[in-house]
Amino acid sequence: MTRILILSRYAGECRRLIENARLPDLEKLAAMTDPAEAFICGNDFDIVFGEPALIREVLADLPGVHWVQAIWAGVEPLLDPSLRRDYLLTNARGVFGGLMAEFVFGYLLMHERRIFQRYQAQQEYRWDSTITGTLRGKTLGLLGVGSIGAHLARTAKHFNMNVRGYTRSSEACREVDAYFHGDQLPDFASGLDVLVSVLPNTAKTRRIVDAALLSRLPAHAIFINVGRGAAVDETALVNALQNGHLALAVLDVLEQEPLPPEHVFWHTPNLFMTFHTSAPSFPEDLTRLFIENYHRYVNGRSLLHQVDFDRGY
Amino acid sequence: MTRILILSRYAGECRRLIENARLPDLEKLAAMTDPAEAFICGNDFDIVFGEPALIREVLADLPGVHWVQAIWAGVEPLLDPSLRRDYLLTNARGVFGGLMAEFVFGYLLMHERRIFQRYQAQQEYRWDSTITGTLRGKTLGLLGVGSIGAHLARTAKHFNMNVRGYTRSSEACREVDAYFHGDQLPDFASGLDVLVSVLPNTAKTRRIVDAALLSRLPAHAIFINVGRGAAVDETALVNALQNGHLALAVLDVLEQEPLPPEHVFWHTPNLFMTFHTSAPSFPEDLTRLFIENYHRYVNGRSLLHQVDFDRGY
Repeated sequence: MTRILILSRYAGECRRLIENARLPDLEKLAAMTDPAEAFICGNDFDIVFGEPALIREVLADLPGVHWVQAIWAGVEPLLDPSLRRDYLLTNARGVFGGLMAEFVFGYLLMHERRIFQRYQAQQEYRWDSTITGTLRGKTLGLLGVGSIGAHLARTAKHFNMNVRGYTRSSEACREVDAYFHGDQLPDFASGLDVLVSVLPNTAKTRRIVDAALLSRLPAHAIFINVGRGAAVDETALVNALQNGHLALAVLDVLEQEPLPPEHVFWHTPNLFMTFHTSAPSFPEDLTRLFIENYHRYVNGRSLLHQVDFDRGY
Repeated sequence: MTRILILSRYAGECRRLIENARLPDLEKLAAMTDPAEAFICGNDFDIVFGEPALIREVLADLPGVHWVQAIWAGVEPLLDPSLRRDYLLTNARGVFGGLMAEFVFGYLLMHERRIFQRYQAQQEYRWDSTITGTLRGKTLGLLGVGSIGAHLARTAKHFNMNVRGYTRSSEACREVDAYFHGDQLPDFASGLDVLVSVLPNTAKTRRIVDAALLSRLPAHAIFINVGRGAAVDETALVNALQNGHLALAVLDVLEQEPLPPEHVFWHTPNLFMTFHTSAPSFPEDLTRLFIENYHRYVNGRSLLHQVDFDRGY
């Protein structure tokens, strides 16, 4: 018999979906939005499902936890070496690709199709029939080609773009036209029209988008970060934008979230921030994924999307 | 031996591309941007290639014209019943679908992903992490499913949308989940999240988007017109937007282009105009299409994309 704790801003909706699924072997189901209330019904949980940042708060007080299912792709709050690692950690994969593609291509099309400029023209009663750009034939470079990167590659191909991928070693996604690894980062970046980082925050990705890499991009290039903020050297990015060496940056993720009011990003030219909203964790997606893994758990099968604590994803 | 007149704002680029193609049987090639200069090298042309609005100006003075290749999809300027119809008219098809998809989905994603609202939040130093929408699971209705509509249907499927199509009779596009014809227009429109008109300007499409049709859409719906402005009852559209019965309208085409300064569209709430820029006629696309048809012409084969003057497309 299993005891599940849901600890999530979507606790109510997740509880409803799990109750409807009538899971086998379920003895207890508690659902909370606030870690301070997590143990109102005891702390004898086997399984925790929810946001890594909330789960971190209660982890030390869950003696019997065997499995944590995170509703995020990034699980940094649980990777702190001071925290226990005596449980299975699974993250959310395969659910964010489509949402990320909407985000990335929404901003790319906003830029190519000059949506702000046309709007401005309309405000000025000005018939602006200047020609627009197109994604077709442009080259997108993906820093990281996991399940999200692969989805972005497919969308890029739908829009007839060329796709380069920079990965540790994997070359599994067929929509990537050319792969780069290791010290091939400068070649990967040279001449890209669009650079998208989908990288998690690990020792190897820290500040990978630095002045040297940005200098490889043409001045008309766009940089989009939907991975983790730590992958970017913020000073180098601001310099590139301020000096006109980069046309646009769209940052969904930042080293400091929320961003302090004094940070230069708020008013850096051609920098758009989107406040970590690019791929919302819809309860129905995440609960479906949890339920699938739950059935594996009670049947003694291996869980999907297990995180390697040392690797960080 | 054939004599070609290019009459286009892209005359120079089209001439260069055609010269590079070393067309067989070509005796003369003239390229002009201004109809007033069209006959500087004589008027003995067999073939005209260019913008319908410019070609209209010279049509009466081209005694030997056999074939006109328009670089637009819409050829209304040449459909006026007072004009001659003793030549083959071919239009541009199959080249605008991808560009139209970029346009339509650029605006749909702008709306779902709240791009303007996030930008506004940033201007106010406000961390706006309110959840975004998604295209996934929403329903797109296509008024017209020709080559452009079919491309839009494919992009909608890429983003996991449902697709309805309203056509005269064709049900050829497999990405359309449900077809509607004739008097089924109210059923077609009922509950659509997005309505896109790709309709040409014909007697049968005039003001098809009227108050009755708009009343079938939910208040959160979006209307996008990339066909022709005459398909829309402008007063009904403005009423729907002003009364909050429609969330957004994006009009690339209008009955009057350019729009007069006194027109209400300039300042109608939630109405975006894009000044007939949704699918630019890139010279390389159109010249490729012309060259393909030219080879058919000199070999006595039937031309692609022939326009039926009575049907209007």
